[in-house]
Amino acid sequence: MSYNSYGHLLRVITWGESHGPALGCVVDGCPPGIALTPEDIQVWLDRRRPGTSKFVTQRAEPDQVRILSGVFEDARTGGPVTTGTPISLMIENVDQRSKDYSDIAQSFRPGHADYAYFAKYGVRDYRGGGRSSARETASRVAAGAVARKILGSDVVIRAALVQVGAIAVDRSRWDWAETRNNPFWCPDPGTVGLWEEHLGEVRKAGSSVGAIVEVEAVGVPAGWGAPIYAKLDSELASALMSINAAKGVEIGAGFASAALSGEQNADEMRIGGNGQVEFLSNNAGGVLGGISTGQAVTARVAFKPTSSILTPRQSIDEAGKEIEVRTTGRHDPCVALRAAPVVEAMTACVLADAFLMHRAQTGGGAFAPGGRGRS
Amino acid sequence: MSYNSYGHLLRVITWGESHGPALGCVVDGCPPGIALTPEDIQVWLDRRRPGTSKFVTQRAEPDQVRILSGVFEDARTGGPVTTGTPISLMIENVDQRSKDYSDIAQSFRPGHADYAYFAKYGVRDYRGGGRSSARETASRVAAGAVARKILGSDVVIRAALVQVGAIAVDRSRWDWAETRNNPFWCPDPGTVGLWEEHLGEVRKAGSSVGAIVEVEAVGVPAGWGAPIYAKLDSELASALMSINAAKGVEIGAGFASAALSGEQNADEMRIGGNGQVEFLSNNAGGVLGGISTGQAVTARVAFKPTSSILTPRQSIDEAGKEIEVRTTGRHDPCVALRAAPVVEAMTACVLADAFLMHRAQTGGGAFAPGGRGRS
Amino acid sequence: MSYNSYGHLLRVITWGESHGPALGCVVDGCPPGIALTPEDIQVWLDRRRPGTSKFVTQRAEPDQVRILSGVFEDARTGGPVTTGTPISLMIENVDQRSKDYSDIAQSFRPGHADYAYFAKYGVRDYRGGGRSSARETASRVAAGAVARKILGSDVVIRAALVQVGAIAVDRSRWDWAETRNNPFWCPDPGTVGLWEEHLGEVRKAGSSVGAIVEVEAVGVPAGWGAPIYAKLDSELASALMSINAAKGVEIGAGFASAALSGEQNADEMRIGGNGQVEFLSNNAGGVLGGISTGQAVTARVAFKPTSSILTPRQSIDEAGKEIEVRTTGRHDPCVALRAAPVVEAMTACVLADAFLMHRAQTGGGAFAPGGRGRS
Amino acid sequence: MSYNSYGHLLRVITWGESHGPALGCVVDGCPPGIALTPEDIQVWLDRRRPGTSKFVTQRAEPDQVRILSGVFEDARTGGPVTTGTPISLMIENVDQRSKDYSDIAQSFRPGHADYAYFAKYGVRDYRGGGRSSARETASRVAAGAVARKILGSDVVIRAALVQVGAIAVDRSRWDWAETRNNPFWCPDPGTVGLWEEHLGEVRKAGSSVGAIVEVEAVGVPAGWGAPIYAKLDSELASALMSINAAKGVEIGAGFASAALSGEQNADEMRIGGNGQVEFLSNNAGGVLGGISTGQAVTARVAFKPTSSILTPRQSIDEAGKEIEVRTTGRHDPCVALRAAPVVEAMTACVLADAFLMHRAQTGGGAFAPGGRGRS
Repeated sequence: MSYNSYGHLLRVITWGESHGPALGCVVDGCPPGIALTPEDIQVWLDRRRPGTSKFVTQRAEPDQVRILSGVFEDARTGGPVTTGTPISLMIENVDQRSKDYSDIAQSFRPGHADYAYFAKYGVRDYRGGGRSSARETASRVAAGAVARKILGSDVVIRAALVQVGAIAVDRSRWDWAETRNNPFWCPDPGTVGLWEEHLGEVRKAGSSVGAIVEVEAVGVPAGWGAPIYAKLDSELASALMSINAAKGVEIGAGFASAALSGEQNADEMRIGGNGQVEFLSNNAGGVLGGISTGQAVTARVAFKPTSSILTPRQSIDEAGKEIEVRTTGRHDPCVALRAAPVVEAMTACVLADAFLMHRAQTGGGAFAPGGRGRS
Repeated sequence: MSYNSYGHLLRVITWGESHGPALGCVVDGCPPGIALTPEDIQVWLDRRRPGTSKFVTQRAEPDQVRILSGVFEDARTGGPVTTGTPISLMIENVDQRSKDYSDIAQSFRPGHADYAYFAKYGVRDYRGGGRSSARETASRVAAGAVARKILGSDVVIRAALVQVGAIAVDRSRWDWAETRNNPFWCPDPGTVGLWEEHLGEVRKAGSSVGAIVEVEAVGVPAGWGAPIYAKLDSELASALMSINAAKGVEIGAGFASAALSGEQNADEMRIGGNGQVEFLSNNAGGVLGGISTGQAVTARVAFKPTSSILTPRQSIDEAGKEIEVRTTGRHDPCVALRAAPVVEAMTACVLADAFLMHRAQTGGGAFAPGGRGRS
Repeated sequence: MSYNSYGHLLRVITWGESHGPALGCVVDGCPPGIALTPEDIQVWLDRRRPGTSKFVTQRAEPDQVRILSGVFEDARTGGPVTTGTPISLMIENVDQRSKDYSDIAQSFRPGHADYAYFAKYGVRDYRGGGRSSARETASRVAAGAVARKILGSDVVIRAALVQVGAIAVDRSRWDWAETRNNPFWCPDPGTVGLWEEHLGEVRKAGSSVGAIVEVEAVGVPAGWGAPIYAKLDSELASALMSINAAKGVEIGAGFASAALSGEQNADEMRIGGNGQVEFLSNNAGGVLGGISTGQAVTARVAFKPTSSILTPRQSIDEAGKEIEVRTTGRHDPCVALRAAPVVEAMTACVLADAFLMHRAQTGGGAFAPGGRGRS
Repeated sequence: MSYNSYGHLLRVITWGESHGPALGCVVDGCPPGIALTPEDIQVWLDRRRPGTSKFVTQRAEPDQVRILSGVFEDARTGGPVTTGTPISLMIENVDQRSKDYSDIAQSFRPGHADYAYFAKYGVRDYRGGGRSSARETASRVAAGAVARKILGSDVVIRAALVQVGAIAVDRSRWDWAETRNNPFWCPDPGTVGLWEEHLGEVRKAGSSVGAIVEVEAVGVPAGWGAPIYAKLDSELASALMSINAAKGVEIGAGFASAALSGEQNADEMRIGGNGQVEFLSNNAGGVLGGISTGQAVTARVAFKPTSSILTPRQSIDEAGKEIEVRTTGRHDPCVALRAAPVVEAMTACVLADAFLMHRAQTGGGAFAPGGRGRS
């Protein structure tokens, strides 16, 4: 219900502005007894951190997370585990440069949330984008780390950048391991150089460019999600579209489904060698009727170009005067370069929530063909 | 929270199966004093009704709606108005043919929700798809009619089919009025014949095809939505992706944003002749930072092909046996042919809910540049 | 969130007015595979039914419930079971006398919701109290019947009337079986005659009187509820206070706790003969820190007198004129005489919801002292 | 939905344990443009603070609140105002004595939440009660301060202690101003000495005692609340019963209603000298049919005695062994002595939420008799 939270049973509320003293989130509804250390969270924050390549903002933020509540020593292991009470996570803002913001304090930057916030609230924290800054996504990544611990190691969630500007990866060369070998989360080593060159030009021109991120979750059992309005794909669409700069979400074959025939689209089923249900294709992206099928859950998210560009653009200000706006300062030429860990985190949160919802209604597990009952 | 409801303040819960005695919805949170007759709802249901062309299911359902609660005579006008209490709407199922379902009762039809429901629940109403039938969308359309009354005539919501299979409309010939002149909701008269021919072939072959629906809401004032997780675009994505067979949702320029430069993407702003804020383009689809800007809110939804096809497909049954499935009976060759009114209805519900949420937090209205305060 | 629904995971929305065509509810979130027939619900509705004694309204309503969705034949047993989809329940209003309501259409009856509805909505269905009629509680009882099926037979929920006017039962004579032997749900046969006499006088005088209902739930395992704001006692307080005419709710020793010493109040614990935790008293009412302890969950609800009385009372009308109001027609002299089944139903709904919430977060079961882990 | 949050539109989530590094809350949904400084919050926290008299815990906590987000300088006044984004409030724990907790780490203290937490979660932060500590209520008071700012000065919320043990105040001597003149929030100066003496004895005996707090909200306009399950009294019951140690809640005449006649109970209405609706009594406690009437909203909350007492009590430990427990350390002999500001805060939160909900559905204001329409 709340404007700044998401999830039904695993409920995350985030707070904080780009240039306030800190930002963070509270994760409520986490099951008890799950081992959780700050390092479990830090590892994911480090992947999203600014300043990791010349193509992302050079703001120097260590993004060090603190766990303020919800974790206590386990009587058996002595190590910290979740207690079932709210987990409060805080990241202090360190590099809020005491820059002079007077030039943009009254201006609406085209493509930014400036005007919309003004129209709605009449007041806004204009420093670094305030609440609408991509810094808010650090809280999402922190929450996602908790969600991953809930899901456990059987569910593997991984994202890759599959298109920058008009340049898409060659899917025949896809190698998930490569996403760790370049600053772009690119799964195709053959495309890395092309992006590097393109982004270099974009950056030099003070321009920006959009991109597409793809995510998959392997190991999701059949039965998660719900048929009508809490559909797993509907929940994913909501969560992924809520990421800054996202403009589109598709599941499985997505928009390409429109041009498929019914024969091409309907993923056929067989019983595999291990006696398990096996699908011969995955146009559905692992979701049928809103419920997971046991296949990999797959989605893609389109991100618009960073709105902050050096080229002057026509705009207006709070006084209603026509002006020109040109955004200087620290900016990513492609905001989506740091979006992959955020997409992963939101996917993890949606899935952990779906797991809890499924366990609530059914007790968990899935019915398997062959009359073997609930697993 | 609930699995079968949507909306925060305008809350809709739907119920009913394809072959049960009836289906319907309860609309809760509607403001009081709004004139509402069954005809106000019926007009929209009639647009979604089966049997209106040879390209949609020939099931003969009058889809006559009854208002069971929440409406009472207004002391001033004597006409029926909403009372602020829940509006219960019911549509009786008339043409549930007493067909023999034994052939599919134990089978999982590829592309259908059959297997997912079985895995989750262990029991399912297999008659006509049960709860996962497109008949459920009649409830959405009924709720959408109420939402339109809340929004009033200043907000105009209209959808069109823009692609069937691989054949897209020619946007240079776009004419909204044309969507009422053909059974396809096609805004381009030049494309109607192509679709007719294509769909005829698809139908004859017992196959099916996907499609894309586009929707716009004109007249949405600036300020609706919320910045982070109740973003207007996030809410739209959730609502639209929850429609049966939807596989993708995009806002404004959507997936095409990825290939835009920052200069192309950022919609420039001017003060129009009337002293109002004016945007020079609408790549944002009327939403910035999750909040409406006053431009038309635009979205597109991709639908997969109908899963029910005559061609036999490989599958399995509940016993875990490998089988072939071939779906006979009444089916739309393109489920999206009747999706436009559903897309409109879901958009209306999301917007009416956003209107109420905005009024709750801010009192309503928007701040306008020039220091004229809240409108 | 919704104004007319309750519950988190077992979510009930009710609709309907006293003199509309029907009333009912939708129960969402019910686990699948639970045997459910109309009779399972009817048995509880029959207990709440009007016209069962001369001390309750003589309105002739069969209160026949129909299950419109959410139930289907089980493949194994052939009997109807819940499918996990929304269960729509409808009760048609039969005896809405075509009375002339013009005398109260514009008047505010003291103690009634008339004025409050008018102030809020500006329009109200004044026939028989409209939405605020006690008829709405039929929907609660129907939903409660579903909740009982979810809880199963291990949890026994039973309510009794313990005070009518100033006359309380003698607890030393308490016998639950007696509650079925008199029209008052009185557990003490020695008090029945006193109430009968008192209520006879009250009725003859055209007056009314308040009462107190007590409920207990035996068999609730330890661990249900949540520590802070979804406390089991907080949820019960909310649900019970939402019943028409309720003015107070207490758990365990309740208001009497104020006068207890810490020694008296703290329920001591031992290990019982069966190796189970045993409490030596139950001032807590089965709830500590918001979580059930395994003891009987106990609560009491105070009901105000029926507001409809024959004695003229000073009031005003919609025109702002001072008037006298005297309520004729069919009314219970003590609204609480039919409240026991409603209190039971609301308790059942809260507990079933708590069960699902607990299963979601923890997988279900409880940790038992002695290192035997989760049961 | 979340286990640790409350409110629909004004949504508060609290986090933190008694002996963790900090505790706090996030207040989401606050309207923009409301002046808010740390001092606005601190003044209420100071009233709840431990160590203010010899009858409350001597733990030395400054309870200094920090506003971490959601507030920014107003362009017009330069002063800090709410921005409509989440307000994160943090209070650091300072005096978490590094006491040895090994004696209670494995024990269940009778009357405490120890056993219930263990049964539910299998792990608990036993230091100072962990999450179930009364320290959590500091977060509620902080949130309540924000709620008061939303309500504005027209709504006055004030609580008093009306009974300690068996000693009730003499209502004929009631003077709200007196509640500030003694450490008990006692409105009757004649009772202060009696309580002082009684509490002195209780403290000396290492015992404890319960109490009753009464709250009233003056200035609540007619129309807030909702008819069925979001009733204003139901919401109050939920919020007040969620306070630590609360065992009962009543509205208006409450449990005494049971013994009233219909004539006594129904608050008669007149038109006052100012042309406004005037009630001749307030048994309803300002709420009819779940909706405020414009009268003072009144409620009472019963608190059980502090469970921590010096007298040894029979109990068990985690190993399932029977033990004796005797609680030493810093404890309030009457937990309710500090409950009044918490009761006020929860009432403020419920009312601010009801205000926003009412504004959402109706636009705000109320219809007044006399055809003057919505105010």
